[in-house]
Amino acid sequence: MTTVPTALDERAAQADADDVLGPLAERFLLPEGVVYLDGNSLGPLPAAVPPFLTDAVTRQWGTDLIRSWNGNGWWDAPLRVGDTIGRLIGAAPGQTVAGDSTSVQLFTALSAAIALRPDRPLLVTDPGHFPTDRYLAEAVARRQGLHVRRVPPAGLASFLAAHSERVAVVSYSPVDFRTGELYDMAAVTEATHRAGALAVWDLCHAAGAMPLHLDALGVDFAVGCGYKFLNGGPGAPAYLYAAHRHHMSLETPLTGWNGHAAPFGADRDYTPAAGIARARIGTPPILSLLALEAALTVFDDVDLAQVRAKSLSLTDFLLHCTTELLTPLGIEPVTPPDPARRGSHVALRHPHAHGLTRALGDRGVIVDMRAPDLLRFGVNALYTTHHQLLTAAHHLRDIVREAAYDPAPAPSGPVT
Amino acid sequence: MTTVPTALDERAAQADADDVLGPLAERFLLPEGVVYLDGNSLGPLPAAVPPFLTDAVTRQWGTDLIRSWNGNGWWDAPLRVGDTIGRLIGAAPGQTVAGDSTSVQLFTALSAAIALRPDRPLLVTDPGHFPTDRYLAEAVARRQGLHVRRVPPAGLASFLAAHSERVAVVSYSPVDFRTGELYDMAAVTEATHRAGALAVWDLCHAAGAMPLHLDALGVDFAVGCGYKFLNGGPGAPAYLYAAHRHHMSLETPLTGWNGHAAPFGADRDYTPAAGIARARIGTPPILSLLALEAALTVFDDVDLAQVRAKSLSLTDFLLHCTTELLTPLGIEPVTPPDPARRGSHVALRHPHAHGLTRALGDRGVIVDMRAPDLLRFGVNALYTTHHQLLTAAHHLRDIVREAAYDPAPAPSGPVT
Repeated sequence: MTTVPTALDERAAQADADDVLGPLAERFLLPEGVVYLDGNSLGPLPAAVPPFLTDAVTRQWGTDLIRSWNGNGWWDAPLRVGDTIGRLIGAAPGQTVAGDSTSVQLFTALSAAIALRPDRPLLVTDPGHFPTDRYLAEAVARRQGLHVRRVPPAGLASFLAAHSERVAVVSYSPVDFRTGELYDMAAVTEATHRAGALAVWDLCHAAGAMPLHLDALGVDFAVGCGYKFLNGGPGAPAYLYAAHRHHMSLETPLTGWNGHAAPFGADRDYTPAAGIARARIGTPPILSLLALEAALTVFDDVDLAQVRAKSLSLTDFLLHCTTELLTPLGIEPVTPPDPARRGSHVALRHPHAHGLTRALGDRGVIVDMRAPDLLRFGVNALYTTHHQLLTAAHHLRDIVREAAYDPAPAPSGPVT
Repeated sequence: MTTVPTALDERAAQADADDVLGPLAERFLLPEGVVYLDGNSLGPLPAAVPPFLTDAVTRQWGTDLIRSWNGNGWWDAPLRVGDTIGRLIGAAPGQTVAGDSTSVQLFTALSAAIALRPDRPLLVTDPGHFPTDRYLAEAVARRQGLHVRRVPPAGLASFLAAHSERVAVVSYSPVDFRTGELYDMAAVTEATHRAGALAVWDLCHAAGAMPLHLDALGVDFAVGCGYKFLNGGPGAPAYLYAAHRHHMSLETPLTGWNGHAAPFGADRDYTPAAGIARARIGTPPILSLLALEAALTVFDDVDLAQVRAKSLSLTDFLLHCTTELLTPLGIEPVTPPDPARRGSHVALRHPHAHGLTRALGDRGVIVDMRAPDLLRFGVNALYTTHHQLLTAAHHLRDIVREAAYDPAPAPSGPVT
């Protein structure tokens, strides 16, 4: 079989032995014999979800029926779950609402932010931003008469220096979804505000993986999905954060009845509810929303600073394994080695990333890839071990060394 | 105890004995001892849902994890479920997509329809339309530079005669959500088209309760929820129908990545997918969507013409019970007696509708009310019996006769 470099083995064993978060893995139902490194795409099933969802379906829906809107708290769920997520992103209660998809929430956030900066013609976004963020920026800008400028975070300061009073909104993500690079949220938000613009953040690849400080940084709007590091299940409802100071003047484009001041009053015209409730739209998918609520209990009594520390230990160890085992075989690490610039996944470059991902899957190591040539290894401090990362690196080394993979390029199939 | 008018008893017994759809009630898990007449607000739990959802959670999410997007058909679910709903609304495959809320789908339908009729300044909607339809009509019209005209269906012909070339879109529902009145979809759609305008229908209170014929009528766009007569569970995903002929020029306002021609290609710009797939937005709430898919199996081998016939038999019988037992006590039927003008619920007017609804609930008869004075009795031919309606009428008679209810008006709480 494979020869194991003893130093890496020992380092993994020591790090896992020292891991204070180790017992949290019991909060997940992870399949036997699988190394799951794709929680940055779809978080695994928390143990709390199945019994919670069974209760929601059989008792709340089946027995209590329509009365559950009041009696089992369905009506308040978007705000209740929103506040629970708020605790993970540094948002005081009353500023976060859960529901709809990230794309819909982003449409609301961008539309509302632009409306707060009339007479400014530019919307700045990242050329490397996740596709839906870029597409929606274009759609919202066109609809509201703005132009999009694609400026990488590293170029923002000089762009703002040249165009500051023309920029309405800056829309970025703290973590690059391909490379795993972490940007400086504080510096970007501050530069944006100095230019008189508003900051809209997409937290999909950050929330749940590290402490975030929306209130403290003075962020204006943020959105994020429920299904990556929040482990809420496939397509789990997303969330929208809007800072308190914007609520009074917040104009949402999707004036659904759930966001009305008197949703059951059947008023002639739309009057927005007070506070973040005005960002509600239609009736949310309650079963998916309750699954997310159950999933969020994995964060009970968890210190996100410890989560971040372990996440960095994991990605640092994987980069170390890469240097030792994989770089000599032509696999190039893409994620920055500087911990201050690293999110919670590691991207490795290889021209046959698709075939390698498939071959790893056949050996029980689940990672994903981003075309054309990046393999992504997502770590989650709540359940990933250093030992698992070494196992993954060993398998990848063996696969490359033995050329035991299909060199065909990726088909355009669904991988999220 | 109460005296039972024998003729009504016998008529109920005979109608239930003759009911060919009677065995379908076994497809639902209805709580013992409850007469559920609020399926027009939240359909009850189909027996197929719990095992289907357990599989979705524990095997598909828990064990297969990210691989389920391909392996268990999650990616195709919006189009697959859309086509299943299409069979219930008279839509050939490839024109219906499921996901998001009715409000979001309506925003898309109205925006897209208006864009297909540039230079026409009016959007016509029903002053009695469900609130979210009215609010979104105003929001979309304002955003696209149109004006809303609120014209009841009965006044449409004369309005179009006066304004025909100025009307871009007519947005109605076939069933009035308060009174249960059924409008003539064919006549409204034809008049709309004669004026060169497009027809957008909200099917929330009709789909699943009667045959619908979107293709045959030449309807342009339609939306509807999944949680009323489709029984998909609380906040079940909604759906959008767009006729084939509009797909090529269909511009959606929410250009999320799921609707891209190459959703995994990470193109620089948004290129809409071919066909109805371009109306996809973000990642849909898969657990809620799969619950809806399971729920739709209650329609397997069911003839909607039979459903409609039994629904009319039920509402006709309830109106008859009302005349016999309730009108003498001051309860006034609001729903038209003409079967051609009757949806699948009956509305009764009484100044203490709220207290009566509560008192009925205490006796195991679940109905709802719409402020200020309407009680709504929803029937669903898949599980409602004539005997249940007589039981409900008897209870209501006794409650009114004994003044056994709270005369306070309705609080502004959540009832959907």
